[in-house]
Amino acid sequence: MTVAVYLPLAEKTQWWVEMLQGLLPGWDVVSMHDEIDPGAVTYGVVWRPRTGDLAGFPNLKAIVSIGAGIDHVLADAELPEGVPIIRTVGKDLTQRMREYVALHVLRHHRDMPRQLQAQAESDWHAIVVPVAPNRVVGVMGLGNLGAAAAQTLAGLGFDTRGWSKSAKDLDGVSCFTGTGEMDAFLDGCEILVNLLPLTDQTRGILNADLFAKLAPGACVINCARGPHLVDADLLAALESGQIKQATLDVFHQEPLPADNPFWSHPSITVTPHVASQIDAGTGGRLIAANLKAFEETGTCGDLADAARGY
Amino acid sequence: MTVAVYLPLAEKTQWWVEMLQGLLPGWDVVSMHDEIDPGAVTYGVVWRPRTGDLAGFPNLKAIVSIGAGIDHVLADAELPEGVPIIRTVGKDLTQRMREYVALHVLRHHRDMPRQLQAQAESDWHAIVVPVAPNRVVGVMGLGNLGAAAAQTLAGLGFDTRGWSKSAKDLDGVSCFTGTGEMDAFLDGCEILVNLLPLTDQTRGILNADLFAKLAPGACVINCARGPHLVDADLLAALESGQIKQATLDVFHQEPLPADNPFWSHPSITVTPHVASQIDAGTGGRLIAANLKAFEETGTCGDLADAARGY
Ligand SMILES: NC(=O)c1ccc[n+]([C@@H]2O[C@H](COP(=O)([O-])OP(=O)(O)OC[C@H]3O[C@@H](n4cnc5c(N)ncnc54)[C@H](OP(=O)(O)O)[C@@H]3O)[C@@H](O)[C@H]2O)c1
Ligand SMILES: NC(=O)c1ccc[n+]([C@@H]2O[C@H](COP(=O)([O-])OP(=O)(O)OC[C@H]3O[C@@H](n4cnc5c(N)ncnc54)[C@H](OP(=O)(O)O)[C@@H]3O)[C@@H](O)[C@H]2O)c1
Repeated sequence: MTVAVYLPLAEKTQWWVEMLQGLLPGWDVVSMHDEIDPGAVTYGVVWRPRTGDLAGFPNLKAIVSIGAGIDHVLADAELPEGVPIIRTVGKDLTQRMREYVALHVLRHHRDMPRQLQAQAESDWHAIVVPVAPNRVVGVMGLGNLGAAAAQTLAGLGFDTRGWSKSAKDLDGVSCFTGTGEMDAFLDGCEILVNLLPLTDQTRGILNADLFAKLAPGACVINCARGPHLVDADLLAALESGQIKQATLDVFHQEPLPADNPFWSHPSITVTPHVASQIDAGTGGRLIAANLKAFEETGTCGDLADAARGY
Repeated sequence: MTVAVYLPLAEKTQWWVEMLQGLLPGWDVVSMHDEIDPGAVTYGVVWRPRTGDLAGFPNLKAIVSIGAGIDHVLADAELPEGVPIIRTVGKDLTQRMREYVALHVLRHHRDMPRQLQAQAESDWHAIVVPVAPNRVVGVMGLGNLGAAAAQTLAGLGFDTRGWSKSAKDLDGVSCFTGTGEMDAFLDGCEILVNLLPLTDQTRGILNADLFAKLAPGACVINCARGPHLVDADLLAALESGQIKQATLDVFHQEPLPADNPFWSHPSITVTPHVASQIDAGTGGRLIAANLKAFEETGTCGDLADAARGY
């Protein structure tokens, strides 16, 4: 078995190659940044693969996404059809996302940006906010990450809602389903968290139309994918005050270019796609386990559905 | 029955007077900022009472602290002896403290101060931190507020410890008891939250000696009382790097004077005693209920123990 690894940075790819090689004794693990024999490759392990790389492996059995989303794999215009795609999820990924969502919802809830501004002015100014049970927060997407995030927010005491494609039943979370219940989900929502996968249905979903349906002065946290957001609509909604603050972890272009206005916008918090990173340690063990399972049985637990896009 | 109310600000006192008057029909509610008949006063409802005010009421049956702590009452050098002191606690106070502690522990855990610094420099710099289960956090004081805070942190996934005077048993929290187990509690602790009451035993407890026992580069959150902290020791520990960041909600002098170095210290977050405020709405209802219960039965649920100091 030969596993070919690709991440945009050659150095990072090398870490992953060494980590996986240690976990897959008897397998060959190589970097797509090096010269390799395409016919030998049976598995591709990728983050943002280059167009055509995977199509160049005639004996490919499966593709592993180094991450929960598969949009970056489906974005390969020459992606070979019918090759199963394995997601990388697991308890560390969920744990980190819970932390990120709890932190940023609490920051907006308690208005830390304005509190820090008061500190900068040596101003003893108490900002009075409602208690969490009187604050409506909504999570879009109730998959592995969204469901855990919503339940964490409910555990912190927030009046928590969730929205997904198929009906869900989550303790402490009011669940809304499909486009038919989307307006009801958004109505009165004061802090919105996006944890949808990026698909044709969800691209650009964070737009002026959606912002207008939230409570006036709502806050938005995008920790899914950059193209979920219509950047210009966010800037306009911040300008009008319909949106008060936003936290963005993901962007149309990453790294976010130095001249992007988000960097210095007073009402935007930028984090560099760190909401929930997979590290080569834990992630490597998950990927090695999935590869071994797939090699033995022809399937594994974390298979994505390329047709539905996630 | 006459209830005399005192808070340092006359205007704020007036809000409380009106709120309590509405909730206690048939009682007299007056402000200590006005001329009143001392002999008529049966209850004092106070925040930081002036020395001697309470001693001036010969028919006082009980004193209500507008807050969970009674240190500000005991600080009255002429406090009449033997008059019961009623604390003001309740689910909103606990809820707000849980939020504050969760927010500030997560901020330090995910190193938001450094992340915001990177944003200010348009620097796409991912700060890698362990997952919460690999982060040791400790809560000093496991009363109403400390126990709820510790369990909230455990719920977020942190490796959570607590410390109190008498032995405790809290789900998901490793509990340490008394001075004998204090060093074990502090050893390896990476984020420390103080929720002790201010007493002769706890004054100055956040000092150089304690800081040295924490994990190197630990973070400290003081949301109990200003005099728990030896200010100069914190500044020295930040200077040496033994303490990396601190969040302070309470101070020796409040409002924190404009020339205090904490305001502009790059490693200190200052919040203006807002961790958990009692508002006149919810707090008023709690106080009115306690006063009615005390008047009817001669006791109530939230009695403090003046001898032990909390
Ligand atoms: N920023 C980061 O660090 C980071 C890290 C990891 C992942 N992510 C992002 O987070 C996303 C979610 O991850 P996950 O593992 O939770 O995904 P997942 O398990 O596939 O769950 C996706 C959820 O979205 C719902 N959904 C999909 N399309 C929808 C639509 N058109 N309308 C309404 N709901 C829809 C799904 O509904 P059903 O349940 O009905 O199918 C499901 O609940 C990933 O795709 C990735 O983009 C970001
Ligand atoms: N910043 C804010 O906005 C804000 C708001 C409200 C309250 N506070 C502060 O928070 C404090 C705690 O409130 P609370 O309602 O949780 O108090 P509490 O119910 O009286 O609990 C105090 C806890 O501290 C422990 N303790 C006391 N002395 C100790 C000692 N010498 N060594 C070890 N443990 C000791 C007690 O142990 P035992 O259980 O064994 O007695 C108890 O667990 C208040 O006193 C107040 O100063 C701050």
